[in-house]
Amino acid sequence: MKVIIVGGVAGGASCAARLRRLDEKAEILMVERGPYVSYANCGLPYHVSGVIADEANLLVATEAMFRAVFGVEVRTNCEAIAIDRAAKTVSLRNVLTGEASVEPYDALVLSPGAAPVRPPLPGIDLPGIFSVRTVPDARHIREWLHQHEAPKTGMDSYTGFQTVTKPQRAVVVGGGFIGLEMVENLAHLGLEVTLVEKLNQVMPPLDPEMARLVENYLVKHGVNVQLNDGVAGFRQCPDGTIEVLTASGKNHPADVVILAIGVRPETALAKAAGLEIGARGGIRVDEQMRTSDPDILAVGDAVEVKDFVTGQWTLIPLAGPANRQGRIAADVIAGRDSRFRGTQGTSICKIFEGEIGQTGPSEKVLRAAGVTDFEKVYLYQNSHAGYYPGAKMLAVKVLFRKSDGRFLGAQVLGEDGVAKRIDAFAMAIQMGATIYDLEEAELCYAPPFGSAKDPVNFAGMVAGNLLRGDMPIVHWDGTGDGLLLDVRNPAELAVESVPGAVHIPLPQLRARLGELPRDREIHVICRSAVRAYYATRILLQNGFNARNISGGMLARSHRA
Amino acid sequence: MKVIIVGGVAGGASCAARLRRLDEKAEILMVERGPYVSYANCGLPYHVSGVIADEANLLVATEAMFRAVFGVEVRTNCEAIAIDRAAKTVSLRNVLTGEASVEPYDALVLSPGAAPVRPPLPGIDLPGIFSVRTVPDARHIREWLHQHEAPKTGMDSYTGFQTVTKPQRAVVVGGGFIGLEMVENLAHLGLEVTLVEKLNQVMPPLDPEMARLVENYLVKHGVNVQLNDGVAGFRQCPDGTIEVLTASGKNHPADVVILAIGVRPETALAKAAGLEIGARGGIRVDEQMRTSDPDILAVGDAVEVKDFVTGQWTLIPLAGPANRQGRIAADVIAGRDSRFRGTQGTSICKIFEGEIGQTGPSEKVLRAAGVTDFEKVYLYQNSHAGYYPGAKMLAVKVLFRKSDGRFLGAQVLGEDGVAKRIDAFAMAIQMGATIYDLEEAELCYAPPFGSAKDPVNFAGMVAGNLLRGDMPIVHWDGTGDGLLLDVRNPAELAVESVPGAVHIPLPQLRARLGELPRDREIHVICRSAVRAYYATRILLQNGFNARNISGGMLARSHRA
Repeated sequence: MKVIIVGGVAGGASCAARLRRLDEKAEILMVERGPYVSYANCGLPYHVSGVIADEANLLVATEAMFRAVFGVEVRTNCEAIAIDRAAKTVSLRNVLTGEASVEPYDALVLSPGAAPVRPPLPGIDLPGIFSVRTVPDARHIREWLHQHEAPKTGMDSYTGFQTVTKPQRAVVVGGGFIGLEMVENLAHLGLEVTLVEKLNQVMPPLDPEMARLVENYLVKHGVNVQLNDGVAGFRQCPDGTIEVLTASGKNHPADVVILAIGVRPETALAKAAGLEIGARGGIRVDEQMRTSDPDILAVGDAVEVKDFVTGQWTLIPLAGPANRQGRIAADVIAGRDSRFRGTQGTSICKIFEGEIGQTGPSEKVLRAAGVTDFEKVYLYQNSHAGYYPGAKMLAVKVLFRKSDGRFLGAQVLGEDGVAKRIDAFAMAIQMGATIYDLEEAELCYAPPFGSAKDPVNFAGMVAGNLLRGDMPIVHWDGTGDGLLLDVRNPAELAVESVPGAVHIPLPQLRARLGELPRDREIHVICRSAVRAYYATRILLQNGFNARNISGGMLARSHRA
Repeated sequence: MKVIIVGGVAGGASCAARLRRLDEKAEILMVERGPYVSYANCGLPYHVSGVIADEANLLVATEAMFRAVFGVEVRTNCEAIAIDRAAKTVSLRNVLTGEASVEPYDALVLSPGAAPVRPPLPGIDLPGIFSVRTVPDARHIREWLHQHEAPKTGMDSYTGFQTVTKPQRAVVVGGGFIGLEMVENLAHLGLEVTLVEKLNQVMPPLDPEMARLVENYLVKHGVNVQLNDGVAGFRQCPDGTIEVLTASGKNHPADVVILAIGVRPETALAKAAGLEIGARGGIRVDEQMRTSDPDILAVGDAVEVKDFVTGQWTLIPLAGPANRQGRIAADVIAGRDSRFRGTQGTSICKIFEGEIGQTGPSEKVLRAAGVTDFEKVYLYQNSHAGYYPGAKMLAVKVLFRKSDGRFLGAQVLGEDGVAKRIDAFAMAIQMGATIYDLEEAELCYAPPFGSAKDPVNFAGMVAGNLLRGDMPIVHWDGTGDGLLLDVRNPAELAVESVPGAVHIPLPQLRARLGELPRDREIHVICRSAVRAYYATRILLQNGFNARNISGGMLARSHRA
């Protein structure tokens, strides 16, 4: 049996290694268009800044290792240019020498990945404009920054003259994972960074109100965040710098530009071969990663996958699923009945000290999928016991089914402990947990790591209080007709108050119930909706019609 | 309805607050023997060292808050001395004034906690010997250390004479959670610490070979670890210091001694009232936290709970379950059908930079419960992508059912990312996941947080390889008759080799199969059992009888 694998990074490399373990006799040929196989594309932004100092560290497994350990024939700088499905052959071409060959296959695995989107804008090919996909890309950015290094700040130690400080300015176009990671790493190098994003939010997988927190955080760290403004073109200035022109007519000067607008599945080869392409633009595969031609499988960023929760086709260009798909493709070729269970879109992104985590669909994805049987709650909890140093607030949005409590998705932001919660949430979704299961989760606790009631438990409790009818809630955009009752302390109101709200501090509430109307819905406010929950319980049991405003003032602070 | 709650810390305080939320009219009296309610006993070791500087930070909720916000009558320094079940009354006594009263109840909740074990050893009441249970305990240790502060190291800036350095020496008796946390915090203060442990391992919930890693780590951090040696008594020296005498005849000088031998459920009140006590010495309760008297419930460290996995009664004195039990007791009193699902013993303990995490039963607990249908694997994976700075090795032991792959328990040790994995594992156990589910878990990954194949995935894959028959394994204690085949590189063998092992580096294996016997089991060695897995696959497919030695050289380094 001869297996050809097109693409030697995450999915392809996983497939090759797994297939060899399953079948010592198969002839395996892995071709990769670039100069390296199995490199750490997730590490590229950190190599640009030198956080990952040595380029060699990005090479997870070398060509030599694939040959020696896995007995896999590797051809780098080798592009697959055509598939003859009838003849079961692939035409290959060396991108450096132009040398061509035709290789027969019994099974073919496509793992070409996804290419950075490069719209045909005026000036897009100017020097100094980069995408971040390959090891050479990172190398070119490093070289560019080094060549264009600005004079250092401060006194010249020899002449005594003060040198003129000219910090480098970067424009990052696109505020997704790679865009944000590039923002951090360029800022780490001391550049002034402008982030230009066409949408009304950064981090498109997040719901907009959660993205608001990220935007505020970027601004706090000195990033110039420009939303709702796409790039119209690029212009080279006489001094060699670039002007980034936007749709709204703005003009952002830059010494370097990073394009991180998103990625598009590499489907040219598959399309030309007549393989089915899905509506989202990825190669269509079944649960066993088979394309519409059963002898051709496809994995990784190039394929469409099913959202595990909504069942809808989606594109999730992430390394974890790509690796698992590669493994599954190898299993299937080796005659095993492995299946891909779909994706939850579980992700995390570091931005400065912040962590942005998500698993399961967002509210907007649920709405786009036509799901109406869901509710959401917001909560704000310490990352670990508040009395132990270093606790940070986690902002959590939880989505769940109203009808049966099934837990659907979570978004968690903060500067500590996000990954811990996302992984618990991710496992819960995978196993079909309800928010009642979250209430009862027994997670690890010691003061440096969590709380006796973990934010994951709180998420379940808040949702459970809602579904059991113990705590009707309302969101800030639904408070129109209610009487706003603020139960915070006077000192808190001095900092920020809500126009029109009645103020009764929680400890006085029982004694002052007579001041509240019985013919009107009361919407209770506190800082994080915990005290407002206590107040809501007091009110409900005293015959009032009360609702807690989910997330309280903290949720108000980042409304979309 | 009048409810009396005996004990105002984790379980009791949770119960009181929850009950008020469910029932605005109930009369709730919470009595606490100590001077504080709802204090952070988990924070006490960190207050001793000043990591938590302010004692007030340990008070999570005050007496005043319970009165004002929850309308709960609180009596501190108030001990419950007897229960009259027929009359449904509790006799109370103020421990400061001796004032006595009798209070009727409709429902009674016992949350007395567990007391530090203080065996009747000679000298145990000497000044300078402390337990760590209450806020005053921590205060007394701080005061003692301050009073007995040693002269500072270095030159006296006034006289110019060098002062004699006399570091304080601490002996911690008992190597469980509190013992280890006290070791860290005393070392943090600059004390020389000796840890005396009667058992053959520290951290009794861990299996001994995993505890070995902790012991090595303590030694590396300068702790004098004395295992297999119980304390025989204490003696005061003429200079005021204490000698800790051990069963083996050793003598450890100390300026301060911490007793952390373990805790024993406080059952005197329950026993005297004739309530059923379990075989493990805790108050027996049903799933609804009811004792043998349906009007009396009990929660927290004083009760026996069912191990979620084995179904056996056990004692788990941890804050998380105590809080949930308090909540459940309140629900039950309010007429709700809440049930405690048992405990997984999920825990984490910080020791210096290390993190010790566990969820589900250990191997020794499984064996003690008569479970034979299980297997274990060891793995050693980076806490996050190795190419991103700060990655640390995680040592992972995974237990699972052989018959159906059900995931049973995990122990994880390392200096980074332990909590993330324990919480994923904990949720998996709760939801009845198999090791096949672990393989497919979609956990959050970016280079600072994990790997595309997370250690949790690897745990599932290693176990799955075993159960699918792809990778027979053997443990180090079972390698007796096999031929040892070491597939590491020559440079690695130069550092440490295994006597009697044949050496064929993995890349040469296919070419040198002729050197290996076909009539003998081959046990394959590498550093962490990954390359040995590849080798095992090559051997099996070439007709050899091969097994991977689980965990490789790394597992060998901490055999029990």
